[in-house]
Amino acid sequence: MDYRRFKNTIVCRIDKGEEILEKIKEIALKENIKLANINALGATNDFTVGVFKTEEKKYYSNEFRGDFEIVSLTGTINTMNGEFYTHIHMSAGNDKGEVFGGHLNRAIVSATCEMVINIIDGVVDRDFNDEIGLNLFKF
Amino acid sequence: MDYRRFKNTIVCRIDKGEEILEKIKEIALKENIKLANINALGATNDFTVGVFKTEEKKYYSNEFRGDFEIVSLTGTINTMNGEFYTHIHMSAGNDKGEVFGGHLNRAIVSATCEMVINIIDGVVDRDFNDEIGLNLFKF
Amino acid sequence: MDYRRFKNTIVCRIDKGEEILEKIKEIALKENIKLANINALGATNDFTVGVFKTEEKKYYSNEFRGDFEIVSLTGTINTMNGEFYTHIHMSAGNDKGEVFGGHLNRAIVSATCEMVINIIDGVVDRDFNDEIGLNLFKF
Repeated sequence: MDYRRFKNTIVCRIDKGEEILEKIKEIALKENIKLANINALGATNDFTVGVFKTEEKKYYSNEFRGDFEIVSLTGTINTMNGEFYTHIHMSAGNDKGEVFGGHLNRAIVSATCEMVINIIDGVVDRDFNDEIGLNLFKF
Repeated sequence: MDYRRFKNTIVCRIDKGEEILEKIKEIALKENIKLANINALGATNDFTVGVFKTEEKKYYSNEFRGDFEIVSLTGTINTMNGEFYTHIHMSAGNDKGEVFGGHLNRAIVSATCEMVINIIDGVVDRDFNDEIGLNLFKF
Repeated sequence: MDYRRFKNTIVCRIDKGEEILEKIKEIALKENIKLANINALGATNDFTVGVFKTEEKKYYSNEFRGDFEIVSLTGTINTMNGEFYTHIHMSAGNDKGEVFGGHLNRAIVSATCEMVINIIDGVVDRDFNDEIGLNLFKF
């Protein structure tokens, strides 16, 4: 992974074999990012995306392997109790172009991942919400 | 729904049971947004997305119910005849990770929706275009 | 195609029959854009998206025709050897809402395409990487 920061924008390359969420965390900690919006594209050959069953308040996960192009990767870096937090959803197309996605648990880069992080001057923390069963934005 | 504005960026949480397009309108009117770019993720259990049949100049809609993760939600707030207008496309993955989407007509949040609105200092209005059958950006 | 620039943000309309990547290049050259992040929605009736087979280091392409709504179009403008370069991934939903996508090779607009280009004050060039078989961000 390598990146360059231009004022409040970071342009980043995540490399083959690296896991995307780990690299987001690494950048956030190095650059002391408290709040940011993320967009990326890339290629992955191994990823797990979840779907939250709202009745059960539980995540189920789907694993995918093969040659996939990341067609959307979007979400935020923010904080929970002042500490790093990230929430990302991703979708990716297979060799027929069929797209699969959900809540990003883990994605291994197979070729490259090109990410733009827009840092926002501000802070939004999170709180666990009992009714929903998730950590939600707290304003 | 709740949100915080940081200069020209709004970070927003849309809550369970709320409809996303209604909340975009509410924020736009409260914050007097004339032009903005939107990105979001979240979960929905009830959404309708359209596809425009260009020959017929008519939208057809597909309805989806169940546990879905919003994997992309993108578009703009702008104006038509000076009044609020928004145009959003959305896609969402089901419990197998299969992704469905199109022109967003309506989406009810099932858990949370996390949105980032980037306000642009400018104005772009719309005009109905007879040949296309849609309200297009007018420059 | 027509657009308006507001400081470092360009709001753009690409018209029926126009090819999206060609129009991105046209804007980038006219506006002398060296680095930018792109988001768009729209409609296409003819597009080709690729998937990179990492073992073979080769792109395979899938062609789609019919009424499709572009649900995600994301990527960057940057440079390679100082010259214009763009890398975009796209996904689009058909008349049943089923989404297909990958690395964007070509997309013809069928109704309209609405694009927001965020220009970044900086430069990131590319380099061909032998191991990966692609032109990667060079920092």
